[in-house]
Amino acid sequence: MIKLGIFDSGLGGLTVYKTLRESIPCADILYLGDTARVPYGTKSAATVTRYAIEIVRYLVDREVEAVVVACNTASAYAMDTLRKTARVPVFGVVFPGARAAVKATRNGIVGVVGTRGTVASGAYQRAIEKLSPTIKVHASPCPLFVPLVEEGWLEDEITHQVAQRYLEPLIAEKVDTLVLGCTHYPLLKNVISKIMGDDVVLIDSAEETGFKVKDYLACEDRLRERKPGGDQFEVTDSPSRFAEVGRIFLNRSLENVSQVNVTEGDEVDGSDL
Amino acid sequence: MIKLGIFDSGLGGLTVYKTLRESIPCADILYLGDTARVPYGTKSAATVTRYAIEIVRYLVDREVEAVVVACNTASAYAMDTLRKTARVPVFGVVFPGARAAVKATRNGIVGVVGTRGTVASGAYQRAIEKLSPTIKVHASPCPLFVPLVEEGWLEDEITHQVAQRYLEPLIAEKVDTLVLGCTHYPLLKNVISKIMGDDVVLIDSAEETGFKVKDYLACEDRLRERKPGGDQFEVTDSPSRFAEVGRIFLNRSLENVSQVNVTEGDEVDGSDL
Repeated sequence: MIKLGIFDSGLGGLTVYKTLRESIPCADILYLGDTARVPYGTKSAATVTRYAIEIVRYLVDREVEAVVVACNTASAYAMDTLRKTARVPVFGVVFPGARAAVKATRNGIVGVVGTRGTVASGAYQRAIEKLSPTIKVHASPCPLFVPLVEEGWLEDEITHQVAQRYLEPLIAEKVDTLVLGCTHYPLLKNVISKIMGDDVVLIDSAEETGFKVKDYLACEDRLRERKPGGDQFEVTDSPSRFAEVGRIFLNRSLENVSQVNVTEGDEVDGSDL
Repeated sequence: MIKLGIFDSGLGGLTVYKTLRESIPCADILYLGDTARVPYGTKSAATVTRYAIEIVRYLVDREVEAVVVACNTASAYAMDTLRKTARVPVFGVVFPGARAAVKATRNGIVGVVGTRGTVASGAYQRAIEKLSPTIKVHASPCPLFVPLVEEGWLEDEITHQVAQRYLEPLIAEKVDTLVLGCTHYPLLKNVISKIMGDDVVLIDSAEETGFKVKDYLACEDRLRERKPGGDQFEVTDSPSRFAEVGRIFLNRSLENVSQVNVTEGDEVDGSDL
């Protein structure tokens, strides 16, 4: 049995979980959503990196054999630090997404949408340039996409208008490939695709990452096990809203979500204020 | 000289700061924005209360003589705990807002808008009922208002449509008074007022709280000092975005914002993952 850890700032990583669950049915998967500190997309590199380190430490202590950083912002800011220091392999979502975009583009003009943090970090831009220096990359932050998804307004007229405003500059740049650089965005695929048009290829970093982790594990005999692996969902805030909104991502109810503590030296009470 | 502490999950409390600064010019004000864990509005009562306790402890250690909980969600969830345990007076925004609404309503039907957490807590509903049991209260969460304000889309057509959708049920209930139960919402006053109509009184909890703290301090001789007090702005994440978006709230640039740590046992590094 292989035990994999996935983490995200909150719910979005469930899109990565879904691909991993489908492509590696025999793996035990431990999913950690940092819902007490979500979102990461508006926070600084230093803070996001600190949170990511705390969580990877927690997952390694729980004996996972590899960690998937499902959060684009954490991948964008913290991958170098995590890779250098963790005792297990760490996979991010940025590189697989970048590689798929390089393969997909025909005119050499790629768009990237993501949180403020992901776009500001320049991580996708750098990864694409490393793979193919001649490709032009245009990136746009879309801060309202996450709250719109969490509101459940997936095919809404208002969402359409917001998306149009964010995407127009990318259409003007004639991108023929668009990286959905945030795990919430695949839920807006229909709206985004309507605006970008059929000729623009949408890259789902979550999907690409699932494939990459499977590739990495391909030589493991244990992958051939027939017994399906188990799921554990853990969050740092109360499980109820995670379970509720998780339904938007997985089309099924999430049971047995438990609350855990990933920081040290806690147990705050108000007795000595 | 009187030293006051104000805290909020992030930037929104600057609306409360503004009123306090204007009404008590001689006070030293220490503002703490918990930007490393913002927002509170989507988080659970237990988590928000834990954060509020940590911050009040931090402010009391910094020798403030009173604490103003500028965040509606923290006021809604944590006031009882904070009041019972803190060594200094603690003021929330919920009660002043509720009292102003009770005074303002003519038909006895009051609306409340706020975050998911504030509305779910029922804090405004209980406070209004306590003051006047015959008043009917209708509350609506407006989760997209905060991201719209932080995007700077204050008088935008999209914001107008979002507000219309959130407010229509309150119009149908014929509310004649609407409590803006989140410190970000006064920045949408123009849009909200256009939709609700001129006959609906908008209650700004931030303003009301400023008046209440001034009332409380009114008997203090020190209030008559002529020398203007100083401001300190502190945040738990990087100061740059706080300073930038703070401009939307204060119409002036924020200087000397510093980053602090309000939790104990920190200093995370990646050396032992």
